Amino acid sequence: MSDHKPDIKLLFEPESIAVIGVSQEPGKIGYKILENIVEVGYLGAIYPVNPRGGHALGLDILRSVDEISGEIDVAIIAIPARFVFDAVVNCAKKKVKFLTIISSGFSEVGNLEEEQRILRYTRKNNIRVLGPNIFGHYSSKVSLNATFGPRDIRPGNVAIITQSGALGVAMIGKTAVQNIGLSSIISVGNKSDINEADLLEYLINQEETKIILMYVEGIQDGERLVEVLKRATRVKPVIVIKSGRSIRGAVAAASHTGSLAGSDKVFDAIMRQCGVLRAESIQEALEWSKFLSHTPVPVGSNTIIITNGGGVGVMATDACEKYDIKLYDDQEKLKLTFESVAHGFGSTKNPVDITGEATKADYLKALKEALVDDSIESVIALYCETAMMDSQELTEMIDEMYGQYQAAAKPITFSIFGGERTETAITALHKKNVPVYRDVYDAVSCLGALHFIRKSQSREIEDYTAAKVDLDAVNKLVDSALADGRSFLLAEEGQGLLNAASLPGPRGGVVHSVQEAVSLADKIGYPVVMKVVSRDILHKSDAGGVLLDLENDAEVIDGYQTIIHSCKANVPNAYIDGIEVVEQIKAGTEVIIGGRRDTNFGPTLMFGLGGIYVEVMKDVAFRAVPLSQREIRTMIKEIRSYPLLLGVRGEARKDIESIISALEKVSALISLVPRISDIEINPLVVYEQGSGARAVDIRVLLSDDKEDSKS
Amino acid sequence: MSDHKPDIKLLFEPESIAVIGVSQEPGKIGYKILENIVEVGYLGAIYPVNPRGGHALGLDILRSVDEISGEIDVAIIAIPARFVFDAVVNCAKKKVKFLTIISSGFSEVGNLEEEQRILRYTRKNNIRVLGPNIFGHYSSKVSLNATFGPRDIRPGNVAIITQSGALGVAMIGKTAVQNIGLSSIISVGNKSDINEADLLEYLINQEETKIILMYVEGIQDGERLVEVLKRATRVKPVIVIKSGRSIRGAVAAASHTGSLAGSDKVFDAIMRQCGVLRAESIQEALEWSKFLSHTPVPVGSNTIIITNGGGVGVMATDACEKYDIKLYDDQEKLKLTFESVAHGFGSTKNPVDITGEATKADYLKALKEALVDDSIESVIALYCETAMMDSQELTEMIDEMYGQYQAAAKPITFSIFGGERTETAITALHKKNVPVYRDVYDAVSCLGALHFIRKSQSREIEDYTAAKVDLDAVNKLVDSALADGRSFLLAEEGQGLLNAASLPGPRGGVVHSVQEAVSLADKIGYPVVMKVVSRDILHKSDAGGVLLDLENDAEVIDGYQTIIHSCKANVPNAYIDGIEVVEQIKAGTEVIIGGRRDTNFGPTLMFGLGGIYVEVMKDVAFRAVPLSQREIRTMIKEIRSYPLLLGVRGEARKDIESIISALEKVSALISLVPRISDIEINPLVVYEQGSGARAVDIRVLLSDDKEDSKS
Repeated sequence: MSDHKPDIKLLFEPESIAVIGVSQEPGKIGYKILENIVEVGYLGAIYPVNPRGGHALGLDILRSVDEISGEIDVAIIAIPARFVFDAVVNCAKKKVKFLTIISSGFSEVGNLEEEQRILRYTRKNNIRVLGPNIFGHYSSKVSLNATFGPRDIRPGNVAIITQSGALGVAMIGKTAVQNIGLSSIISVGNKSDINEADLLEYLINQEETKIILMYVEGIQDGERLVEVLKRATRVKPVIVIKSGRSIRGAVAAASHTGSLAGSDKVFDAIMRQCGVLRAESIQEALEWSKFLSHTPVPVGSNTIIITNGGGVGVMATDACEKYDIKLYDDQEKLKLTFESVAHGFGSTKNPVDITGEATKADYLKALKEALVDDSIESVIALYCETAMMDSQELTEMIDEMYGQYQAAAKPITFSIFGGERTETAITALHKKNVPVYRDVYDAVSCLGALHFIRKSQSREIEDYTAAKVDLDAVNKLVDSALADGRSFLLAEEGQGLLNAASLPGPRGGVVHSVQEAVSLADKIGYPVVMKVVSRDILHKSDAGGVLLDLENDAEVIDGYQTIIHSCKANVPNAYIDGIEVVEQIKAGTEVIIGGRRDTNFGPTLMFGLGGIYVEVMKDVAFRAVPLSQREIRTMIKEIRSYPLLLGVRGEARKDIESIISALEKVSALISLVPRISDIEINPLVVYEQGSGARAVDIRVLLSDDKEDSKS
Repeated sequence: MSDHKPDIKLLFEPESIAVIGVSQEPGKIGYKILENIVEVGYLGAIYPVNPRGGHALGLDILRSVDEISGEIDVAIIAIPARFVFDAVVNCAKKKVKFLTIISSGFSEVGNLEEEQRILRYTRKNNIRVLGPNIFGHYSSKVSLNATFGPRDIRPGNVAIITQSGALGVAMIGKTAVQNIGLSSIISVGNKSDINEADLLEYLINQEETKIILMYVEGIQDGERLVEVLKRATRVKPVIVIKSGRSIRGAVAAASHTGSLAGSDKVFDAIMRQCGVLRAESIQEALEWSKFLSHTPVPVGSNTIIITNGGGVGVMATDACEKYDIKLYDDQEKLKLTFESVAHGFGSTKNPVDITGEATKADYLKALKEALVDDSIESVIALYCETAMMDSQELTEMIDEMYGQYQAAAKPITFSIFGGERTETAITALHKKNVPVYRDVYDAVSCLGALHFIRKSQSREIEDYTAAKVDLDAVNKLVDSALADGRSFLLAEEGQGLLNAASLPGPRGGVVHSVQEAVSLADKIGYPVVMKVVSRDILHKSDAGGVLLDLENDAEVIDGYQTIIHSCKANVPNAYIDGIEVVEQIKAGTEVIIGGRRDTNFGPTLMFGLGGIYVEVMKDVAFRAVPLSQREIRTMIKEIRSYPLLLGVRGEARKDIESIISALEKVSALISLVPRISDIEINPLVVYEQGSGARAVDIRVLLSDDKEDSKS
């Protein structure tokens, strides 16, 4: 069925459009949409539809979709919610490919039923739906403004996908004021069908779009979104604003791991994993969009600050740390490059201080030195207003240098601070889209975003080889538990899962004679634990069926007999299946590994140090699955307590390889066995490097409402 | 001598000024300063001085200070560094009270000697010095612009103290552009004499000044600054910008505790302790200054958000969490107040959503409801541009409501988001100083600053009663160690210090017979440790002189004899002074307590959980001493691992009172014994509530170059 889905390209580049619900009254939404389409200059066929007929904007209004002679790529529906389904049925008859349902009154007000009825119908008829509850969409490629928002949208290279209509409409105005051009803006509303991932598939390769900006409130089908985002960010910057970062409003998740997740932390981690830039505020997102759309990606990380004031230089240094920008530090080289410009009380160190005496000529000279020096890969130029340059000189200097840097494809950002003269220069330069900021932190934040993009685009293609797990064995365990009416695995089943995934649980086995017990204990290594195995004995300890700390053969021989005697005495008719001989776990560094089918993102992985570190210090890392070994390593390094794994206070380095391996196994289980919803290994006891790890306890939750294993 | 120091008020409100180094050439600094003084309209006596004489700006230039007939309150020195000392000498002869030394070329370029020569001379002659290396100072009270910066400074109620000249001059222009009026701006430069604390003493009580803004690069005499800041912040908001937050450039401090301090963390903690608002960027500081100077402090914390868009509402909620603003949450009450305005798909919950259909009238109604509702104490009003209001309606609505809120002394902040119409409104409203912001985060940040000020001003007067310590005993220990040529205390001396401060070390004593040993052990409680006491035995364990885990009388009797025998056998001629019987410390929660004479702030206190928490997790809190018990409690609660003290995973609450008591003792020691430079109790083992704590190890560093004990 999915093979017959229309190409999403048609939504952005339709050859014909029907507007269902056109009004003859200016001011009404149906009129406004038609007006925007007609006036902005869309060249394809336009079919206004309204049962009452009539004329609008020089076009005949057709009484029904049936009256349309040609094909319809996109039908825009702007009629009351209760009439929408019938309109959809008519569109299906006309083989309309895309519907954009402007109308509200669906799931956003609790009317989920009607929305799903439409969805079921359109799916069956291979119609894709944008919305409902949207302001429409705009596509510069075909000069299509199919929104009821402002008419004048500045064409450009930023694509906006927004889940909030109000914000989206306001952003149209805002981007125009900020001189940011748009390649498209799409209101996704209730996302009943088309979501961000669908739109990204088109935008990734669309030439006009250089930057993708998304305003997101909730994630749908996050697994696919992650996959598409990973591809998109290799090609062009993706910026996301997601509101609801705060605890207020966050729903307390069910399991222990989940309660930590505080889904915003998961969202944040996964966006970083995908190479997506996350902005806190709209202002920040728009500043980044503008800067990134005009500035070349630097070839490397080496950055220098050039300033005429020490104070702002230090602040820029602080900001570089905040925004993860690497300051170039080769003192010898810096001295050679800048000694001719940092005269007097200046400094050739980074920040390069050309002093308050610096004139236009001094700035030009210093910035040119930085431009021609290949070891300098990006530049932050600061200016504190002095009497040495007037407004015009300042403007000219910046304009000229910006031009030269653009020509050489080397990024530069300016921050200039002062009064009227500075303001005049800023106004003039903003008109030319020169990246000049009033505050040092804003300038550095933009450059930081650019360096993030550089790293994101140059990251290695990740290699996902799912770790080997015995899926048949796992599925058998799951089948039997579910058949038993349980949504969790019993302890023994958990051990079975560990075995099936070759995850190192305590070594051991069940024996049926003293001789076997001794031989197994020797193989395991002392000390060992012995436990009775009997379906008749529920409380093994109470029945005297558990012995710890058995140190040698003699103690195992004694122990075997002691257990049999005690159990027979305490539970007279018990059938004893055998005796379990198990490795006694030595103390080590405890870590927690969690695998969880996240409501938003599907399979996710969690890692942290055990006990207090996770519970009190909230020191955990999250990732979406699948992920490469390299990314798992990064994940482990991300926790604040990572030095404990490297060994502190004279302790040896821990067996990090074992942790990686365990994470890979859990990652495979959670992604390949959809009926497993949660896995928590707590603790995994990790020993010194080379000495492995042991999964001491594993909790597994199941859910029955998933499709079968993918394998 | 300090009694003869002139009142700092004279610097701000002089009756006469001499300008030494006046030039006849416009453009020169000496000319520029005189020009600013004359043109801005200073009404006191003005005496230009230059050995060459002549005329400038209608005034006779005197050839020497001697020629001045009247008294001189302030002499401004703007001549090359090498001539400054002679000018100072002349000024001293004329009994000048204040010097502002504009000239550079002193400690900032390594010429500390000349700066100190001047300082010694002026101190001896009771002259106060501002600078050197400054751009001057401005005081609106007497219309005095004694700077070489811009002439037009808008009078107002923000006082700026700046350590950076370049930034200061640029800030004059910047504040004018941002419509921020200044009561004064003072360049402190090298701070050879007058520093921030001196200036604050005047500004605290100066009526014109409502907000104090400081740009700081380095702290001098921090102990006094802390004391003055604590007083100042009760009266008016103090905002500080301190650059050098980042690790780069931070000097690695000497001791273990110090290495953690990363002085910016200490600075940050102490500013918060003092009730000072710390801004990250100049932009933020100026926005806060402007907002705080116009907005009344709210009577309580209850805040509501009123919005016409859900998206911005959620973002404002996020921002409220970030800036620590409490959202009012009485759903019943909110419903009553807002049900008439949040019709349709709106919401009476906080954020109150009056929907995209909201008109000017709806906004007026909703905001008036919030105004008259006494349980609502501050308001965040958001607007996403819609077709429901044009620019004029938007401007009128905000202007009108702002006026009503001001009249009722209830704080309100606006964030409006959109295109041209919104921009027009913002421009119009900014002219009237209405607090309207382009980004939600900016609006909320300002309100957050205001709530910080509310809490800061309403904090209880702190009660500092120094904990009782036996200072004589402590000083004797210090005397003897210093006399011994040591800059640290030996282990036994450390124990002596614990005793002198009644800090709970392991209980115990030295005995000289088996009987005494048994009786002491009984008193202490088992288990105990026994150790030989002998000046001849350095390595007690090697000599068999230490026994652990002695569980009862019999073991003590045996142990006593065993130790004597072993020691006699191993060190044949050793003189045995006695046997020490000491409590064996039980395991508990380990915390670290540090007292340190900080280079900047003098006595400071540090607290954290022991081991990994401090070393790896960097989970520590700092404070300046003295501090009240209440503040010590806040300090303890501040660490992330605080839940461990409350008891997690079913553990009992720890004896937090013992920690407080130990912090009070260390606080007293570090502040009352200046020759102690560092104290570290690591660990203090803390037991369950009611069961006390034990200081297991104490390290004490001394320094000889301090004045004697204050007591």
